[in-house]
Amino acid sequence: MAPDIPGNPPPNAVPDKSFLLIASEADVMIDDGVVFKAFIFNGTTPGPLIVVREGEVVEIIIKNVGGFTHGLSIHAANTQTSKFVGNIAPGSEGRLVFTADFPGVYMYHCAPGGHGILTYTLAGMYGMIVVEPKKDSYLLERTLGREPDIKVYLIQHEVYLNGRDFFDGKAAYVMFNGKVFRYVTEPIHARPCDYIRFYFLNVGPNHVASFHAVGGIWEYVYQGGNPANMAMGLQTVTVGPTDSYVIEWRVPDEGNFLIVSHAFGTQAIKGAVGIIASSSNASVQNVIYP
Amino acid sequence: MAPDIPGNPPPNAVPDKSFLLIASEADVMIDDGVVFKAFIFNGTTPGPLIVVREGEVVEIIIKNVGGFTHGLSIHAANTQTSKFVGNIAPGSEGRLVFTADFPGVYMYHCAPGGHGILTYTLAGMYGMIVVEPKKDSYLLERTLGREPDIKVYLIQHEVYLNGRDFFDGKAAYVMFNGKVFRYVTEPIHARPCDYIRFYFLNVGPNHVASFHAVGGIWEYVYQGGNPANMAMGLQTVTVGPTDSYVIEWRVPDEGNFLIVSHAFGTQAIKGAVGIIASSSNASVQNVIYP
Amino acid sequence: MAPDIPGNPPPNAVPDKSFLLIASEADVMIDDGVVFKAFIFNGTTPGPLIVVREGEVVEIIIKNVGGFTHGLSIHAANTQTSKFVGNIAPGSEGRLVFTADFPGVYMYHCAPGGHGILTYTLAGMYGMIVVEPKKDSYLLERTLGREPDIKVYLIQHEVYLNGRDFFDGKAAYVMFNGKVFRYVTEPIHARPCDYIRFYFLNVGPNHVASFHAVGGIWEYVYQGGNPANMAMGLQTVTVGPTDSYVIEWRVPDEGNFLIVSHAFGTQAIKGAVGIIASSSNASVQNVIYP
Repeated sequence: MAPDIPGNPPPNAVPDKSFLLIASEADVMIDDGVVFKAFIFNGTTPGPLIVVREGEVVEIIIKNVGGFTHGLSIHAANTQTSKFVGNIAPGSEGRLVFTADFPGVYMYHCAPGGHGILTYTLAGMYGMIVVEPKKDSYLLERTLGREPDIKVYLIQHEVYLNGRDFFDGKAAYVMFNGKVFRYVTEPIHARPCDYIRFYFLNVGPNHVASFHAVGGIWEYVYQGGNPANMAMGLQTVTVGPTDSYVIEWRVPDEGNFLIVSHAFGTQAIKGAVGIIASSSNASVQNVIYP
Repeated sequence: MAPDIPGNPPPNAVPDKSFLLIASEADVMIDDGVVFKAFIFNGTTPGPLIVVREGEVVEIIIKNVGGFTHGLSIHAANTQTSKFVGNIAPGSEGRLVFTADFPGVYMYHCAPGGHGILTYTLAGMYGMIVVEPKKDSYLLERTLGREPDIKVYLIQHEVYLNGRDFFDGKAAYVMFNGKVFRYVTEPIHARPCDYIRFYFLNVGPNHVASFHAVGGIWEYVYQGGNPANMAMGLQTVTVGPTDSYVIEWRVPDEGNFLIVSHAFGTQAIKGAVGIIASSSNASVQNVIYP
Repeated sequence: MAPDIPGNPPPNAVPDKSFLLIASEADVMIDDGVVFKAFIFNGTTPGPLIVVREGEVVEIIIKNVGGFTHGLSIHAANTQTSKFVGNIAPGSEGRLVFTADFPGVYMYHCAPGGHGILTYTLAGMYGMIVVEPKKDSYLLERTLGREPDIKVYLIQHEVYLNGRDFFDGKAAYVMFNGKVFRYVTEPIHARPCDYIRFYFLNVGPNHVASFHAVGGIWEYVYQGGNPANMAMGLQTVTVGPTDSYVIEWRVPDEGNFLIVSHAFGTQAIKGAVGIIASSSNASVQNVIYP
């Protein structure tokens, strides 16, 4: 191991944080009457949100309680991972330790080795891990002198009817956080002036997302979620599979603001639409989890 | 309303500029013998170009003289829009006022609410609005000390044969500014050394464009058209649906320079090709409108 | 010609470097038992790597020894090219001279004029030309005070079964450097701490690549390969057709690190996967050619 390369854990490091991912299989409802025979982490697709802070030593335990071989690829780790968690047989477990040296918004997903890496993602076995940068790193937070009012951790992901459609890039459903049109059915509540930070991750596995709000211009965006990669004043961000953005935006007024992947035919109309419902006396949930 | 958030109009503001968009339906010729049963603004698809200056208070009136419900989403506005122009019944009209606080190149499109937002774009009901930044904001303009010789407002857009192809992302035609191979049939004339500024907008609704010139390297590009987001020396820009770029380039010599979306199979061969025809004694049109 | 525009050659310039491209047609093996009836430069698809240095005057001779009309579009050239090498009949040749004023990673491809420009790329007739910037231009090279240990020139490209699939964007094979799963069969060897520089070019002609390493975070990336366009700490880069990146990364440890286009269904599973095989006593090849 190369100790001076960022990402590697120090020898015999004691983890600052530890997380347990339990791999298995289950039927998951992604819409009324629509059952997805999914591969899952901790009972859901997407799997649980993991949040750590830049510089922390992170331990991930993966246990396979399912009937198939599983594994893990964790994009926040710049260190050897395949050797430790790349192939976990049913009934077995693996352990990975890394240092979260790169701030950003990352995908993790099942990676049992070989072609399984590619098709297990098709099966819904993925989630988001966020490495929070050192305090006050994002510009709007520095300018306003406060944390966001609402943090929205938003995963865009696709479900296919069969392998042929997966090869051809023809998703049947495209979702935000696990359900078709989820935030149309259950809008995200906000108040005028609320400072929202989106942690937007497109896990794909195929489509290029274009994340936009009707009535909104993203004030600041950060490619990969890294504060060093800022652009400003954008109507959308173009986000390939496993690409991500942190987006800062304040709600300008009352009323509904649609959030949508602006690829209308291949994505939005298949479920990648939601609503930010703004009113002055809204009861606000401060964190929206995948 | 939150007065300190950029984009909201001041109370009782008198508009600096006002625009009228008339929504209806019509048959439009997009190629010899090819009729597109389109939804349109002001008689054409794409609709009229709107240009304002950063900081101006802008009024948009939309009148529906057609037989279907129409509406408006205007990406240059960071303010509540759906409430005012989101759903305009036949015979009705709506009015939106906003402050153009974010410089850039934006899409506007019909947004009658619900699934119509997605499918009306399929029907050709969109256009470009440009918010010009404060004077001398783009680098080549500052360096040369003069305005561009030619401003090319260029919309890339797609037409589908049916809803199934729209879902599957299989466009039948991909065009620059309303006609298949338009600027092959009627080239854009220029002279060597001419300073061209492209306002390139991909309205999609599905494909990711890759805008390139044969014999050209883009000297400076600005994501979203915002002067703050500059990159330099690029053979192409990758532009998702409703993403945009301002591009600065000088014509290096005489002869033809093809402009093209370099996604050759899914886009260029379906019509997204044009010609910059350069000769020293060319008669030049200073603005190319959509 | 406009002498003060970067890219044009000076009058009567003596080339610093000269390259010969021989255009023809041949059957090429892209996998065991898979024959691709290709159009080729210098006997292979992709064609030969061309490397020049920023500021050099470059001469390209193209000879057509095949049975079809060929030609050349060379994206590193900001000068009139179509007139000189745009259409080369069988048995003929052409000559282009330009100054390599824009550092970066570029595509070249056959461009015989008309629709052939689009379909000859389908036929495999393309390659990479790199314009190396002035010394020490990339950040990791400056920081470490040395050249990369391994330069990987990596072209992602697609093969289609027929024109219909080409229009529809449904590739049959997606490859790195000419063979399906090439670097799975013949891994790229490295040692822990090795400083790798990828010159990644997506020639398409259709798909948007997402280039990622399992167990790796790209330390620095440069859009188009231009040192001025840096971003840092990214799990992937989203790369449209003819877009490119220079990527700097150090191998964190021993073991296998997969490189992959993270568009799993449309690209990776069709061949766009490779392995960086790291071990302390590896015998390393310092340059990986397309």
